[in-house]
Formats: sequence, structure tokens, C-alpha cells
Amino acid sequence: MAIDYKKELEGAARSMILVHEPDTLIRMIVRMMVQKVRVLHAGILLHDEQRHTYILRVSRGPTGIRIPREFARMDYENPLVRFFRERKDKDFLNDGFIIYKEAKKFLKRTVTPEVKEILKKALYQMEILEAVVCIPSYFRNQLLGILILGKKRNGRDFLRKELDFFVALASDVAMALRNAQLFKQLQYELDKRQQLFINTTISLAAAIEAKDHYTRGHTERVTNICLEIGKRLLETKDAHLEDKFLENLHIAALLHDIGKIGVPVTILNKEGPLTPEERQKMQLHSEVGANILQPIQELELAIQGVKYHHERYDGKGYPEGLEGEKIPMIAAIIAVADTYDAITSDRPYRKAMKKDEAISEIKRESGQQLHPLVVSVFLQLYDEGKI
Amino acid sequence: MAIDYKKELEGAARSMILVHEPDTLIRMIVRMMVQKVRVLHAGILLHDEQRHTYILRVSRGPTGIRIPREFARMDYENPLVRFFRERKDKDFLNDGFIIYKEAKKFLKRTVTPEVKEILKKALYQMEILEAVVCIPSYFRNQLLGILILGKKRNGRDFLRKELDFFVALASDVAMALRNAQLFKQLQYELDKRQQLFINTTISLAAAIEAKDHYTRGHTERVTNICLEIGKRLLETKDAHLEDKFLENLHIAALLHDIGKIGVPVTILNKEGPLTPEERQKMQLHSEVGANILQPIQELELAIQGVKYHHERYDGKGYPEGLEGEKIPMIAAIIAVADTYDAITSDRPYRKAMKKDEAISEIKRESGQQLHPLVVSVFLQLYDEGKI
Repeated sequence: MAIDYKKELEGAARSMILVHEPDTLIRMIVRMMVQKVRVLHAGILLHDEQRHTYILRVSRGPTGIRIPREFARMDYENPLVRFFRERKDKDFLNDGFIIYKEAKKFLKRTVTPEVKEILKKALYQMEILEAVVCIPSYFRNQLLGILILGKKRNGRDFLRKELDFFVALASDVAMALRNAQLFKQLQYELDKRQQLFINTTISLAAAIEAKDHYTRGHTERVTNICLEIGKRLLETKDAHLEDKFLENLHIAALLHDIGKIGVPVTILNKEGPLTPEERQKMQLHSEVGANILQPIQELELAIQGVKYHHERYDGKGYPEGLEGEKIPMIAAIIAVADTYDAITSDRPYRKAMKKDEAISEIKRESGQQLHPLVVSVFLQLYDEGKI
Repeated sequence: MAIDYKKELEGAARSMILVHEPDTLIRMIVRMMVQKVRVLHAGILLHDEQRHTYILRVSRGPTGIRIPREFARMDYENPLVRFFRERKDKDFLNDGFIIYKEAKKFLKRTVTPEVKEILKKALYQMEILEAVVCIPSYFRNQLLGILILGKKRNGRDFLRKELDFFVALASDVAMALRNAQLFKQLQYELDKRQQLFINTTISLAAAIEAKDHYTRGHTERVTNICLEIGKRLLETKDAHLEDKFLENLHIAALLHDIGKIGVPVTILNKEGPLTPEERQKMQLHSEVGANILQPIQELELAIQGVKYHHERYDGKGYPEGLEGEKIPMIAAIIAVADTYDAITSDRPYRKAMKKDEAISEIKRESGQQLHPLVVSVFLQLYDEGKI
């Protein structure tokens, strides 16, 4: 039997290094032990550093075992956990692990009252878990986990060489789990940092926008529309979008009007049409915005969105008069969202258009001011009630 | 011999999962093979996905071996790499690996011209590397690396069971390395994202600051001084600083005047002293700044820095009149840096102070306006020429 499952488990232990989802890993290993090793059930008690507990993950095996709820988490005071954490096993016979049957005998022999006390309680825990063997695993003297084995299905005792193998396996499993946890933690940090970045950008953009009385909420609405269009475009293969397109679109949409910080408040809030000079100053905002972000290499794509969001498909836009497909897709998306939000909002010199009028207007501008592909996606989303 | 090193290498393979520095890992494993397995030299050819090559890492072993420079990197066209990538080994005798001696014999037997051609060239590569055995390792059918073994020091051939063991080891090493690479990549992403966050904050803060004619460059200078003070304080144990203190200090310093976006330009740029009403509006900036950032939970500590950077140690500051140690350390640091930069810069209503005058002024304010511990660190840094 030993030869039979050993190789398979070794292979599994090897590939589990690259499984970085702790839950998948635990399920995989516990299931395999129950199937290959033919124990009635198996489990792993795994260290949760943040919560100062050990969490029990169990495979019920073919016969089923019910673990009382209060044993699903064991704190550092739990006797089984303490026994291994405090290395009481060092005074013990079976180098490292507890075999229930032998430990019972051991209790009757000479042993310090302290060890007797804690071992007794640990054995009681094993009874509840229906465990016949518990194998700890350490990394740099820290208890990472405890492998718990139920009875063998054939009713026999574990062989010494089987137990030796399990000690090695427990260590593999614990390391792989620790590795997976570290991975998850890093991934979590990464997500958190991205969120922080986005949130800070939102706050600063909102602060800047607050100076412009007539566009309050504009950035948020435009950003939402842009993200909807971007997600849908990513699903269509013929759009050929860059790596991290959506991330850049998010930033670009949030910051598309950032350059307005350079436009005098008197022009921003003027009630009535702008003079040609005022219009010229106002139109500088897309370039000023791009200049503000220019030093940030990673934002290259987002900067294109900021710079070109007032270009027109027919080439009559600003700042460069780019035409058709020469306008970066990221800017073409912002242009549609920006236009729609502008015409459906009140402005100093005119009232807001109604939604259906606005949609007709957007349709009319397809291929004139606006990119036809983006408009068609926009209209799709509108019909679906997503805008 | 096999029993001798096998256990040690197995133990090493186990713990290498948690070594996340690829270079350390390779050095560790190659050195161990040369020492324990007693080969003249050993090496690993490792996949570098980004550069589409396999990189050779070699231990020269006790007798020394010189690898020609052009073999330090092998592209996908290299015959040895191709042989394993294209799984030519499947037509071959030694399930998976090449034993030089046997492969030579094999060449004389019936074999397709294509396999003969590439195997011949692969063997020539092995001659240059002085390799007697090459063992590939795969993960999900992708060639992760090739383990290269020189002659055994005792001159004998490798035993079959030794080779079997190396096949397993090669796989362990490759997985651990792949894992380490993934870790490094994630860590790199994390650093990049943090940099992006800081850079974007710098750009937006600079854009906001640009409205205030008299404080251009102020934010950057204050931030630099703050970071110097913060680093030094972190080295002194009695400061009891929070987790991620420096990161928060960085953000707080960059954004300490962000609330000035709410102050009319006419007040910001007024030439001459402010009226009481104007002063009141100006003083709102620390609270306005904190309010802008308030929704961002992760910035809790940084927000304290923004909000309280005009508090005074004697309790006569604003907005809350906090006193002494009740002022968060992060704000006390910004206060010192901010004050020093303000008095050494020209303002509409007065000329800049000289450095030595400014230092005397800072000393005088210790325990009055400014936190004594921060002032003492500031003076230290000044004496060292770091400010």
C-alpha cells in the first residue's frame, strides 16, 4: 500500500507549490489523502496568523464525521495546539507526532505532571476529532499546521514508514499553504493599493471639479459610462485594445478635465457664451491636463485619453485635428461619454436635453464628431438600460 | 551514496518553496548539488519568459569549468533547448533525459533524420557544457528548465536510481523557481503601483499648487524634509510610530496644502497682509484638505497630518487647538518642515530669512510652536547637511 499512494502524493506535493489559492490547495490535498491513503477522514489545522487561531479544514471521507462547531477554530490556548506550539512533543516518544494509542500508554508511565496534564487534554481533542494520528509541521520553528488522520479503512494501524512519509508530506503541505497564503496576501496588497490609487485620484479630481459650478458630478457620470463602454468593447475581439486598457480608461476618465485647473474661474463659470479668446483658453484644458500627467510614464495610454478627448472623427476637433482611426480609442470613448453627459446637463447658456433627444443627437454625430464603433456600443448599452 | 545525499536534498527541496528570491534559490541548489552529489559541476538552464531565452546558471565546482559567453543565454533555436521543448525525447530511450554516453550510441541506431540532426547538435552543446546528463523539467507541458550534471567526482556513471531522483529534484527546483519568479513579479507590480500612486499624487498636487504663485516648489521641499525627519525618527525607538508611517507621511506631506484649492486665488496671491476675514478663509485649508481625503479609509493617518499641520505645541494653533503630545506626530513633522520652508521663502509681504536665521527661529519655537523632539531631529539633520 505504501508504495501505491506514495508516488502519487509526492507528485501532488510537487505541483501544489504552484497552486496559489489556499482553499483549492487544502481541498485538493485532503481529498487525495482520503482517496489514496484510504483513511476514513483527514484534516488540516492551519495557522491563521492574523486571527491568532488554527482553522480546521476537514474531509469527511466516505463514512462521514461531524466536527462540533467550536472546534472549527482553535486558539493558542487549545491543548492540541499548545502541545505542538510549546514543543511538548520533545519529551515524547514518537519524534514529533502523536499516535493516539501509544500516547494513551505513555500517559501511564513516568512523565512530568505538566506534560501529563496537557497531553491528556490534547488526547481528548483527538477523540472529538476521531483522529488516530496528529502530525505537526513547522517552518523556522513556527507551527504552521497539524495534519489529522482518521482510522485506516482496513482497520489496521499505520506502519512506521507510512508515518514517516506523512511527516514529510505534512511539511510539504504546510509550506505550500504558507506560500499560497503569502501569495494571496501580496495579491490583496496589490488590490488594496490599486483601490487607494483610484480613490485618491477620485478625491483630487472631485476637489478640482468643485471649482466649476456647472459640471459637478460630471466626472463621475462620464467615468461610469466610459467603463461600461470599455468593458463591452473588451468583449468584442475586433477592438484590439491595449493591455490594462480598462485601468487606463478609468484614470483617463477621472482626469479628463483635470486641465481645467488652469482655466480662470471666471471663464469656467461664465453665464453666457464664451468670446473667441475665452473659448481658446478653455480649449487649452485637454493639453494642460496631458501636460500635468506627462511625467508619469505608466500613464502613457491614459494621457492620450486626456489629451485627445476633444478630437472629432471628421478631423475638426482639437488640439491636433486628428482624424478617424488616428484618434486613440481611449479618447474616442471619453468623447462619446463626455458629449452625452454635457448635452443632458444644464449649462449657463442652455437647458439640458432630454435623454431621447440626446440619443438622437449622438446618433447624428456618429462618423461626424464621434467614432461610429463607440457610438454603436453606446447605443447598445443604452437600449439595455445600462446608461 | 544515493541514500546519503538524497535526504538532504529532499529537505532542501522542501524548504526552498519559501525562498522567494530566485537568485538565492539557484545558488543554494546548485552549490548543494556540487557538494552533496559530488559532481564536478552542475548547472540549471532556466526559462526567462520575458526574453524568450533560457539562462544558464552554473556552479563551477571544485575543478572549475568555463562556459563560453554565448552559451550563458540560449534562445528557443538552441538545439538543446529545442530538443526538450519539442519533446524529441519522446522518441528516445531514457524517458525524458539525455545521458550523453547512451545518446551517442543511440545515434548509430535507426532514428529519423530529423531527430538524428537535432540530437547530434544537442550533444555538441553538452560537450561544450561538459555535461554528462541533462534532465528537463516541465510544468503543464511547458519546459521550465534543464538540470545539467557534470561527471561524478569518482569517475563512475550515474546509477539509474540516482537519475530517477534527479528527475524528481529537477522538477522541484523548477517549480520553486517558477514560484519565486511569480513572487518577484508580484512584488515588482506592487512597487510599480505604489510609484504610480505617488507620482500621480505629486502631479495633481503640483497642478493645484500652481495656482498659488508664492508657494511654487514648496510642496516638494516640504516633502523632502518630512521624509528625512521621518526616516530618522523611525530609527529612534522611543518615537513609537505607526505601521506604514513613512508611506503616510509621504502622502500627507504631498497633500498638506491640498485644501488651498478652496481658497480664492485673490487671497492666495494677495500682496500684503491678510484681513482677519481673509485669514480665517485661508486657515480653513487644513480642514478642507482633510475633508477632501476623508472618504479614503486607508489614508486615515495621512489625513491627520493634513488636518493638524497648523496645530501648535503650546495649543494655540488651528483647527482644534490640540496641545503637546496630543498633536499626531505626522502633523508635528509637517509643521516643522512647513515652517522652515515658509520662513526661508519670499512672501508677498516679506523677504525670505537666511538659513542660519531660520534655524535660530526654529530653535526658539521648540516647545512653543513646534514639537521639541521633531525640532531636535531637524537640527541634527541640518548639522549633517541633509537639509
